[in-house]
Amino acid sequence: MHTQSAQGDPIEDRALSMASAKLLVTALAALLAAAGGAGARELSRLEMTSAEMIADGGGMPLIHMLRPLRGSGGRLGRRAGVPCDSWRFAVETNSVRGWSTIPARCESYVGNYMMGGHYRRDSRAVVDEAVAYAEGLQLAGDGREVWVFDVDETTLSNLPYYAKHGFGAEPYNSTLFGAYVQEASAPALPETKRLYDRLLALGIKPVILTGRREDKREATARNLAAAGYTGYEKLLLKPQDARVHAVEFKSGERQKLEDAGYVIVGNIGDQWSDLLGAPEGARTFKLPDPMYYIG
Amino acid sequence: MHTQSAQGDPIEDRALSMASAKLLVTALAALLAAAGGAGARELSRLEMTSAEMIADGGGMPLIHMLRPLRGSGGRLGRRAGVPCDSWRFAVETNSVRGWSTIPARCESYVGNYMMGGHYRRDSRAVVDEAVAYAEGLQLAGDGREVWVFDVDETTLSNLPYYAKHGFGAEPYNSTLFGAYVQEASAPALPETKRLYDRLLALGIKPVILTGRREDKREATARNLAAAGYTGYEKLLLKPQDARVHAVEFKSGERQKLEDAGYVIVGNIGDQWSDLLGAPEGARTFKLPDPMYYIG
Repeated sequence: MHTQSAQGDPIEDRALSMASAKLLVTALAALLAAAGGAGARELSRLEMTSAEMIADGGGMPLIHMLRPLRGSGGRLGRRAGVPCDSWRFAVETNSVRGWSTIPARCESYVGNYMMGGHYRRDSRAVVDEAVAYAEGLQLAGDGREVWVFDVDETTLSNLPYYAKHGFGAEPYNSTLFGAYVQEASAPALPETKRLYDRLLALGIKPVILTGRREDKREATARNLAAAGYTGYEKLLLKPQDARVHAVEFKSGERQKLEDAGYVIVGNIGDQWSDLLGAPEGARTFKLPDPMYYIG
Repeated sequence: MHTQSAQGDPIEDRALSMASAKLLVTALAALLAAAGGAGARELSRLEMTSAEMIADGGGMPLIHMLRPLRGSGGRLGRRAGVPCDSWRFAVETNSVRGWSTIPARCESYVGNYMMGGHYRRDSRAVVDEAVAYAEGLQLAGDGREVWVFDVDETTLSNLPYYAKHGFGAEPYNSTLFGAYVQEASAPALPETKRLYDRLLALGIKPVILTGRREDKREATARNLAAAGYTGYEKLLLKPQDARVHAVEFKSGERQKLEDAGYVIVGNIGDQWSDLLGAPEGARTFKLPDPMYYIG
């Protein structure tokens, strides 16, 4: 049922990808840049800054037209007749699980969604609701209220990485992604940052809870700080040798928080494994992520 | 946090609506029918058969252009800047809760979604996945495997009713909806019916579990039979005087099923209150429903 095994890191244990696809894109980008055509302009967006990439894309979305199609999106994704937006609906509502790559035919769709403003709009709606909910809370004022944040595709955006790797169409490559994490260069997801700042002002303490393992603690803390996330109550990572799925790990950590006297008033993440499993938190907020699945 | 109180039926306890809106539409329909204009053709779609209405709408979607706008869609829905499809994303992923009507400005959007084929496509994707999952199960063959089905907007479609009541823009009217339920005229949601038939063929027993109360048992059973749902294992309705929210009632009934030796291999519904609360079932399948919320 789960894409990742219980024996390893839910992010790091996927199959190695063919690195050739990335090389192909790079080579074609160079060729097209030399030719100066429209394709070059599209591919040059791969080199835009992180801030530009995350900002609400008013311009042309990035589409990889040139890479050989691959990926499956699970059983459903392999059905040729299923529209990509309906596949996304089924994924975002947790009906389709355990998929390792997006459907090959949906790479352009997902790329457009992520880069063309739709992703940003959906994230904004979720955070608008979260902020309004938080502002309406009657706080006890005893400093025990916390809000749980996931990291990848929640506090931090790995879109600069995924834009170069087919928006989830390439099989996960732990070596490449691990190197990217060590760079600590991921920008904040701006909507989540807005929620984070508002919660601090309200007196609700952020707790960062991630499936990244302890060997990523230093890079993760450095990246969070560089992206403006300071003043959190805790940064909880998965023990290096833990053999648990994300739902078990994260619900277990939330239970420990409650046992320690904290009150989890909210919980935000991009994966259902961030949000399911008691105690979930008084309210959950699901950010969009059509690029990958962690079970 | 909940739209409906714990003291009453989650469907029946909403505020009374202004019946004037329906009368306005009826009067305008009569006027326009007399005039024979394009408006008359659109409104005449209100009179189409249930089968036509549920079938994948290839033609013009029905839009109520003539009714005064009302409704809120919760805190988020009242924010003018939130696009209707992002509101729908936040609703379908359970980030926005406790709303009593769709946002007034989204009535056309939701009407188009429901009638223009998008709803049908999203439902089909969810059921495609459910069927593929069921077909891949290794069954024990002891007749204990069951699949839980909700009723409203799951086995049965109330679209013929909601199309006449603003697709959720009108406040819920228990008198009008109660009379509609007693008609027992709701068509099957065709995708759910396809899943139901496949499960019966596979030897997985359907259990119908609904928040409708016992006084609706006869009408519900009659409607299910008329829509082709026969051979189910149980039809479970909420006791007439039960004072529990949907999540508590439904998870409690699922627990009773497990205690009785049943194995819940799947669970399908249109509300998160159908799908949350242990035991959820081995897999959950969320059908679309942007028209109303039951907490």
